[in-house]
Amino acid sequence: MKVHVIPNAGEARADQLLHKTAVVIDVLRATSTIVTALSEGATGILSVETVMEAKAMQRTGDLLGGERFGRKIAGFELGNSPEEYQSGRVFGRRVILTTTNGTRAIHKAERSDHVLAGSLLNAEACAEAAVLLRRDIALFCAGSHDEFALEDGLCAGLLLDRMIALSATPIEADDLGCAMLGFYRQNAGDIYGTLVRSASGRRMAKLGFGKDVQFCAQVNRFDAVPRLSGDTMTIV
Amino acid sequence: MKVHVIPNAGEARADQLLHKTAVVIDVLRATSTIVTALSEGATGILSVETVMEAKAMQRTGDLLGGERFGRKIAGFELGNSPEEYQSGRVFGRRVILTTTNGTRAIHKAERSDHVLAGSLLNAEACAEAAVLLRRDIALFCAGSHDEFALEDGLCAGLLLDRMIALSATPIEADDLGCAMLGFYRQNAGDIYGTLVRSASGRRMAKLGFGKDVQFCAQVNRFDAVPRLSGDTMTIV
Repeated sequence: MKVHVIPNAGEARADQLLHKTAVVIDVLRATSTIVTALSEGATGILSVETVMEAKAMQRTGDLLGGERFGRKIAGFELGNSPEEYQSGRVFGRRVILTTTNGTRAIHKAERSDHVLAGSLLNAEACAEAAVLLRRDIALFCAGSHDEFALEDGLCAGLLLDRMIALSATPIEADDLGCAMLGFYRQNAGDIYGTLVRSASGRRMAKLGFGKDVQFCAQVNRFDAVPRLSGDTMTIV
Repeated sequence: MKVHVIPNAGEARADQLLHKTAVVIDVLRATSTIVTALSEGATGILSVETVMEAKAMQRTGDLLGGERFGRKIAGFELGNSPEEYQSGRVFGRRVILTTTNGTRAIHKAERSDHVLAGSLLNAEACAEAAVLLRRDIALFCAGSHDEFALEDGLCAGLLLDRMIALSATPIEADDLGCAMLGFYRQNAGDIYGTLVRSASGRRMAKLGFGKDVQFCAQVNRFDAVPRLSGDTMTIV
């Protein structure tokens, strides 16, 4: 089983995704939010690119969530902080979510056979689900504005570490995967500190979202593995 | 002092290079060959893009060196194996070198204020020279055909590790730099093994250049720091 790491959404090429299982990773914060919302009982997450599209897709009962430049969107019920997505808010509701990098990565990943959402929060469960799908895997780091983001690379390394532990067949990582695996293993004891030092982590702290960084740094808090079915992420 | 890592020659943007010191890294094998040739007494290395250009630039006494798809070029005196560039062959001679990825990276790096050639062979000396130039630094990994190459990332991590140790002012690494630093530190005890496992290392072994991988894996064998002056790399 081959595992390839895509460093950011701008870098993704079709040939890296076709016939594969893509695991989209946007630790700060889109995939952490999706994992949390579905774990807390949201019925599905529809990711859309624009605010107008989100509003147009809204049906009775749907919640609108998302951010632009890190901040909540005017008129939306929810921002992009995973802790806003507690069962009291989201249970039994569909969420229409629009974020900067995560949404773009999910849409690009649609060329794959299967699309999962990965984060530190559901790493073990996500690695296991990806391995069980028996396709080559693209660990698709959303990154930040077409740049590599440290927290996504760290999560890719963790996922690879768990895939190697869980897979019955050998895992062949590409060069970027090998580098991320080494980077993760070097920092496995300091996940939160690594997130705090990342460019996104520092930006979050400045915007007053330091608590989100802490929340997103929890490894294996959830067992839910969001999977794209049609245009909506759900838990199977 | 800020340090930014460019993952491959295709990714380099002008704004990442302007007003900076660029350290071009092509461990397997262009910058390892350049460092070796100048350490062994070559007077300068002129990197050119095409075989025709190399032939057109040749003056009496010049040696032609390089590779296409890993192999020596017909009619050239030298290939791209650093061990071919011993003093008996190159002392007192200028070398005109054309390689696939390294040459491209050097030419792109010309937008910087200073261009150095880095490799595992001259890591400590190169890190020190870069720090002394007192500009922000771009660690420019040549990569392989617009993909990240493990051995170049490893070298970037090593250079960053040494810069942090040597610099009087704090070093601020970008996200990719932080990841490469962690990756290097995790694998510092197994540099050769890491090169062997890399895609380039495996390709070299298949082409019969396993000895080159061993040679290029030597950390701090040389003190020479090649620096671009006009169109030619020399040792100051």
